[in-house]
Amino acid sequence: MQPFQRIAITGKPNDTAVIDTIGRLVRHLESRDRAVQIDAGMGTHLPGVPAHAPLEQLVGDIDLLIVVGGDGTLLHAARRIATNDIPVLGINRGRLGFLVDVSPDRFDEIDAVLDGSAIVDERLMLEARIVHEGEIVARSLALNEVVLQKWNTSRMIEFETWIDDEPCNRHRSDGLIIATPTGSTAYAMSGGGPVMHPGINALALVPICPHTLSNRPLVVSADSRVQVRLEQAAIEHVHVSCDSQADLGLTESGWVEIAASPHRLRLVHPPGHRYFDILRAKLRWGDTTPPC
Amino acid sequence: MQPFQRIAITGKPNDTAVIDTIGRLVRHLESRDRAVQIDAGMGTHLPGVPAHAPLEQLVGDIDLLIVVGGDGTLLHAARRIATNDIPVLGINRGRLGFLVDVSPDRFDEIDAVLDGSAIVDERLMLEARIVHEGEIVARSLALNEVVLQKWNTSRMIEFETWIDDEPCNRHRSDGLIIATPTGSTAYAMSGGGPVMHPGINALALVPICPHTLSNRPLVVSADSRVQVRLEQAAIEHVHVSCDSQADLGLTESGWVEIAASPHRLRLVHPPGHRYFDILRAKLRWGDTTPPC
Amino acid sequence: MQPFQRIAITGKPNDTAVIDTIGRLVRHLESRDRAVQIDAGMGTHLPGVPAHAPLEQLVGDIDLLIVVGGDGTLLHAARRIATNDIPVLGINRGRLGFLVDVSPDRFDEIDAVLDGSAIVDERLMLEARIVHEGEIVARSLALNEVVLQKWNTSRMIEFETWIDDEPCNRHRSDGLIIATPTGSTAYAMSGGGPVMHPGINALALVPICPHTLSNRPLVVSADSRVQVRLEQAAIEHVHVSCDSQADLGLTESGWVEIAASPHRLRLVHPPGHRYFDILRAKLRWGDTTPPC
Amino acid sequence: MQPFQRIAITGKPNDTAVIDTIGRLVRHLESRDRAVQIDAGMGTHLPGVPAHAPLEQLVGDIDLLIVVGGDGTLLHAARRIATNDIPVLGINRGRLGFLVDVSPDRFDEIDAVLDGSAIVDERLMLEARIVHEGEIVARSLALNEVVLQKWNTSRMIEFETWIDDEPCNRHRSDGLIIATPTGSTAYAMSGGGPVMHPGINALALVPICPHTLSNRPLVVSADSRVQVRLEQAAIEHVHVSCDSQADLGLTESGWVEIAASPHRLRLVHPPGHRYFDILRAKLRWGDTTPPC
Repeated sequence: MQPFQRIAITGKPNDTAVIDTIGRLVRHLESRDRAVQIDAGMGTHLPGVPAHAPLEQLVGDIDLLIVVGGDGTLLHAARRIATNDIPVLGINRGRLGFLVDVSPDRFDEIDAVLDGSAIVDERLMLEARIVHEGEIVARSLALNEVVLQKWNTSRMIEFETWIDDEPCNRHRSDGLIIATPTGSTAYAMSGGGPVMHPGINALALVPICPHTLSNRPLVVSADSRVQVRLEQAAIEHVHVSCDSQADLGLTESGWVEIAASPHRLRLVHPPGHRYFDILRAKLRWGDTTPPC
Repeated sequence: MQPFQRIAITGKPNDTAVIDTIGRLVRHLESRDRAVQIDAGMGTHLPGVPAHAPLEQLVGDIDLLIVVGGDGTLLHAARRIATNDIPVLGINRGRLGFLVDVSPDRFDEIDAVLDGSAIVDERLMLEARIVHEGEIVARSLALNEVVLQKWNTSRMIEFETWIDDEPCNRHRSDGLIIATPTGSTAYAMSGGGPVMHPGINALALVPICPHTLSNRPLVVSADSRVQVRLEQAAIEHVHVSCDSQADLGLTESGWVEIAASPHRLRLVHPPGHRYFDILRAKLRWGDTTPPC
Repeated sequence: MQPFQRIAITGKPNDTAVIDTIGRLVRHLESRDRAVQIDAGMGTHLPGVPAHAPLEQLVGDIDLLIVVGGDGTLLHAARRIATNDIPVLGINRGRLGFLVDVSPDRFDEIDAVLDGSAIVDERLMLEARIVHEGEIVARSLALNEVVLQKWNTSRMIEFETWIDDEPCNRHRSDGLIIATPTGSTAYAMSGGGPVMHPGINALALVPICPHTLSNRPLVVSADSRVQVRLEQAAIEHVHVSCDSQADLGLTESGWVEIAASPHRLRLVHPPGHRYFDILRAKLRWGDTTPPC
Repeated sequence: MQPFQRIAITGKPNDTAVIDTIGRLVRHLESRDRAVQIDAGMGTHLPGVPAHAPLEQLVGDIDLLIVVGGDGTLLHAARRIATNDIPVLGINRGRLGFLVDVSPDRFDEIDAVLDGSAIVDERLMLEARIVHEGEIVARSLALNEVVLQKWNTSRMIEFETWIDDEPCNRHRSDGLIIATPTGSTAYAMSGGGPVMHPGINALALVPICPHTLSNRPLVVSADSRVQVRLEQAAIEHVHVSCDSQADLGLTESGWVEIAASPHRLRLVHPPGHRYFDILRAKLRWGDTTPPC
C-alpha cells in the first residue's frame, strides 16, 4: 500500500507512559518528515508538539491514526473515526493487546508501516439502533460488541430475538452480547462465547447467565439483522451498551436492532503480523500450567 | 415426627389457581380437624376462611406453614419465618418445583405429612451483612444465594474475596454468586456452578462473566466466612441481593460478609421423597433430546 | 425447482417402524406415479417392493434420496452418496431430528417436495485426510464432524494445530472436534462449542477436555485448511473419526488434514421450513424449566 | 507435631534434575542426622547413597516420605503407600505444583518440616471397585479421580449412576469423572468441574462431553457410595482409570463402585502454607491478561 505521510496521534488520557511514548513518537515521525498532529480530545497538552485539534477535525487531513494505550483506548478512538475509513495503528504501553499489537520501542515495525509495508486488516463493526414507532431514535457503533443487559435490577430480563425476521429465541437471562469477531476475545469470551477469526463474516449471540441451560452461544452471518423485542415492563430495566463505552436507555416502547455497519475499521499491522501469534500470546496457549 | 395440628397457609399473591388451591386446602384441613390460619400478607382475602393475619404474627401459634405457589413464593415465605424454625411444606400450582414439590391434588401426600410421616430436610441459609466501620449496617437472609452484582453500569466491577481471613481471589467480573446447595440449581447454575446435594455442608462461589477464564466456581465449607472488599470507586455500582428479592446498596465504604445463618429452613416432604427424583425431573435427565 | 420423479429410499436397518414407514411411502409414491427403488444396503427385504439394489448402484438413476430413520441414518446415507450431488429428504420415525425433519405422516409435506416446492439447503461437508510422507494414505468425508481422539489410553494426547500454514495452538487434551455448522448441534455441542447457523461458511475447532482453561472453541473460515501434527509417541493412541461412523488409525508418522469437501450435501426441506424452528424445538428453547 | 527422623525419598524416574535434587537432599538430611533411604522403585541408583529398597519395603521403617518431581510423581507414590498413613512432603523441580509445593532450594522450609513445624493436610482418597456377581474382582485407589471412560470406540457410552442406592442419572457421554477435592483442580477441571477446597468432605461427579446439556457437575457427600451400571454391550468399550495411572477393564458383567477409602493421604506442608496461595498461583488468578 501507499506510504503514510500525514499522521494523527491519540492516546489514553492521563497516563504518563502514554505521554512519554507519544513524545518519542512525534520526534521520530518528524525526523522521518511526517506531518504530525495530536488529538486535543485526549485532554493532555504535549509540550513542543505543534498541532493539537480534536480528532474529529483532523480526519479530513490525515492518512493514518496512531493510537497509544490499551485495547480500550483503540476501541474508543475507532468509534470516533469509524465513518472516515482512516487506517489505525495501535501501539501498546508495553503489554501486548489484541488490538494494540505494536510495542512502543519497535520503531522498526512502525517505520515498516509508515513506508507502505503494512498489513491492512478490515474489521467488522456493528451498529445498534433503538427503534421507537418505526423511527430510529438512537444509534451507536461498536467494534467489539453490543450488549443488552439488565439495569438497576437483580431480576433476569425476558426478551425475544429475531434473526432476519424469523423468530429465533425467547431468552430469560441477565442479557445478551452480540459480538463481532474482534469482540469474540473480549466480553463475549467471559460469557462463554467462542473465539472467532476476524476473517469470518459472522456475529456471535452470547446469552449472559441464561435461565435455560441449552441457551448456547449462536454464530450467524454478519449479513443478518438481529432484532430484540423486550416486554414493556422490562424496558426501564434494560440498557444497550456499545463496547462498554456508550449506554443507550430504551424509550417507553421499541425494538433494538443490531446489524453490520457499512463501515469497517481498517486496522494496520506491521509486516509479519499473524493473528494466531497474538491469540496464543494473549490466551497463554502453549502455557501448560493449569490444571495439572 | 409429631402430627401437625395448627397450620398457616400462604401463597403467591393475585393468582387464581393459588387461591383456588388454598380454598380446597382449607376445607380439607378443616375436615381433618386442623386449625387453619391464612397469611394476610399475601394480600388476598379468601371468603369463608376464618382467620387472616400477617404471617409474622402467626408464627408463635403454628406448627406447620404451607406455601402454595412456585419456588419464588417459598423463598419469600422462608425468609419471612426463617428465625422461627417452623417446618414448611411447598405445594405447587401444577408444575413441579425444586422446593414446592407436592402437587395440589395429592391430598394423600398432604395427609401423610399432617399425620406425622413427613421427611424433614434441613436446608442451609446464608446471612449477608454490610459492614461499615466495624458495624453491621444492614443484613438479610438468603435460602438460595447472595449475589454481588454490578448496578447501573456496563463496566465490570473489581473486588477481592477473602475466605476465613485468607486472601482468595481478586475478581474482575460482572459479580459473584454465593450459593447454598439449595440455590445451586437456581441462579448459580446459570452462571456455570455445579449442582450441590443439600446434604453437603458447603457453599459455592460462582463468578458472573469473569474476566479471567481460570476464575472458576469454587466450593468451600459452609462453616467459612466469606468477605468481599470492593474498591471505593466501585461501591455505588454494586448491589447485594438475597434470593433476587432483597437488594442492599453499599454505604460509602465497607465490606460485605457472607456466612451460614444459625437458622436452617426445615423443608418438609411427603414420605418417599427423593432428591434425585426431583433433580432428574427438573433437569430432564434421561431425556435424550439435545444434542443428537 | 424441478419435481422429483425417480426416487430411492434407504433407512435405519432392523427397525420395524422404519420398515412400516417405507412400505407406506412406497405405496404413496407409486400412487403418484414415481419410480421407486430400495437400497439393498439397509439389509431388509421389503415384500412387494419391486427394485432392490445397493444405493451406490442407484445413484446414477435417481433424482431424490429419501432417508427414513434418525439423524445418524441420514449421516450414514449422506456419506455414501456425497460425491453424487443427489438431493436428500429426511423422514423421522416420529421424533424430530436436526436433519430428519419431516414426520412420517406428513404426506402433504412429502408431496410438496415431490412436486417441486422444496427448499434446498446446501450443507458443507469436510474431508479428513491422513498424510504419510506427502501421500494421502486414507481419506473420509464427514457431514457433522471430524474428531481426533485419544484411543486406548487414559492419558491426554498432545498435538499441534496449524491453520493455513500458520501455527495455531499446541493442545494437551482428550482430542479435538472439527465441526461443520451442521455438526455444531451434535458432538461439538457436548464439548462446549457454539451453535453455528448452516448459512455461515465456517468451521469450529472444539477441544475435548483441554488441559489449559483458555483453550476455547475457535471458529475459522471453512476455506481454511486445518492440519494436525501429532508427536510420534502419540500416534498409536489417536484415532480420526468421521461422524462417529468411520475410524481411521494413523500410520507410523504423518499429519491429519481437514478441509471442506468440494461436495455439499443438498438437504431438501418442505416449503415453510425454518432453521430456527427446528433448533428451538430440539434445544427446548422457550421451555423455561431449569434452572428455576 | 513430632520431628521426622527416618525418611525415605522417591522421585520421578530418569530425570536428571530430580536426581540432582535428591543428591543434595540426601547430603542435607544426613548433615542434620536423619536416617535416609532411597526408593529402589524409581529405577535410578544414586551413587554414594547408602540404602536402596522398594518403597513398599521401607514403609514400616520410616516416618516421612519425600517425593521429588511433579504432581504425577506424588500421585503415583501416594497410591503406593496409601494404606500406611505415612506423611508425604512434595518437592517440585522448580515449578510449583498443587501437591509438590516446596521449591528444591528452600532448605529452610524443609528444615521446618523436619523439626516438627509441618502443617498436616489430610486428603480424601477414593477406592474404585469392579464388582462381578457380588464379588470385588479388582480394586484401586485414587487421590485425584476415578474415571470411567470410553475405550477403543468413537461412540458415546451409556450408563446409569446410583448414589447411596438411589437412582441418580442416566448418562450418554464420553465418560464420568469422580473427583476428590484434591482432583478438582486436575482432570475434573478440564471437564468443567468446580474447584473444591480440600477441607470439604465431598466428591464431584463430572460428566465428560455429556449428550444432554443439563447434565452438569454434581457435588455429593464423600460419605456417599457411587455405583455405575453399564449396559452389557458397553462393557468392552469402557475402562476405569485411577489418577490416569491404573486402568481396569471390566469383566463380562458387573458394576463399578466408588467410595471414600478409609485411608487418607497425610500431605505435609511447611509452616505458613495456605491453600488459596497455591490455587491463585497455579490458576494465575489476579493475572488480568485474557480476555481484555
